Amino acid sequence: MASLDLCDLRLQDDGRFPWVVLTPRRAGAVELADLSYADQCRWLVEVDLAGRLVRALGEAWSRPVEKLNIANLGNVTPQLHWHIVGRRSDDACWPGPVWGQGSPEPLGQETVENARTIFAEFAKQG
Amino acid sequence: MASLDLCDLRLQDDGRFPWVVLTPRRAGAVELADLSYADQCRWLVEVDLAGRLVRALGEAWSRPVEKLNIANLGNVTPQLHWHIVGRRSDDACWPGPVWGQGSPEPLGQETVENARTIFAEFAKQG
Repeated sequence: MASLDLCDLRLQDDGRFPWVVLTPRRAGAVELADLSYADQCRWLVEVDLAGRLVRALGEAWSRPVEKLNIANLGNVTPQLHWHIVGRRSDDACWPGPVWGQGSPEPLGQETVENARTIFAEFAKQG
Repeated sequence: MASLDLCDLRLQDDGRFPWVVLTPRRAGAVELADLSYADQCRWLVEVDLAGRLVRALGEAWSRPVEKLNIANLGNVTPQLHWHIVGRRSDDACWPGPVWGQGSPEPLGQETVENARTIFAEFAKQG
């Protein structure tokens, strides 16, 4: 959906949760420790942006986020990537984690386009 | 188990995985974004240390870590805390997440004391 300074940002195709994935564009990186400290500091900025975006998506979907879940698992896909998931106490998996639970609900085209618009607003704010 | 500059570091009482929890000593912090940027940069250093400690525990248990899982969920316990879990492709939950899966296997006193010794070695290295 967007290319940030360090990471590619993608919207997860699952309407159960506002959920984005940040993937640093660093070849061979698997662990956070594989990034330089400078990259890690930049990653902090982009995780913060991703969290605000997820909260904005929750508002747009009339399901305001109550808690962010931020995680690097990478047990299936080794390339370093971070999940930022907006959770609510009435969501499909609460209070458990979302990974591998239930079936994703694909996003409609309109929802994806709306997410792009929201992201573009963020990008303007820098 | 230890008080770092920012976080308390605890060993999770579950012998299925080398697993520590980092809890920043910042009253009221729930999300990573509740920490100042300076605290977040310090947190990066302590997450790195925690990851190296988890790997050292894996070595000590003759179960070298293949992948770290690093996550803030906080759906049950809101106070900001981070899990750093050493995973292996032959562990009890692989490739799924560890939270809420199966039953913890309490650590013996000897294992806990050994972990303290390993941590003390790390602390000396700074």
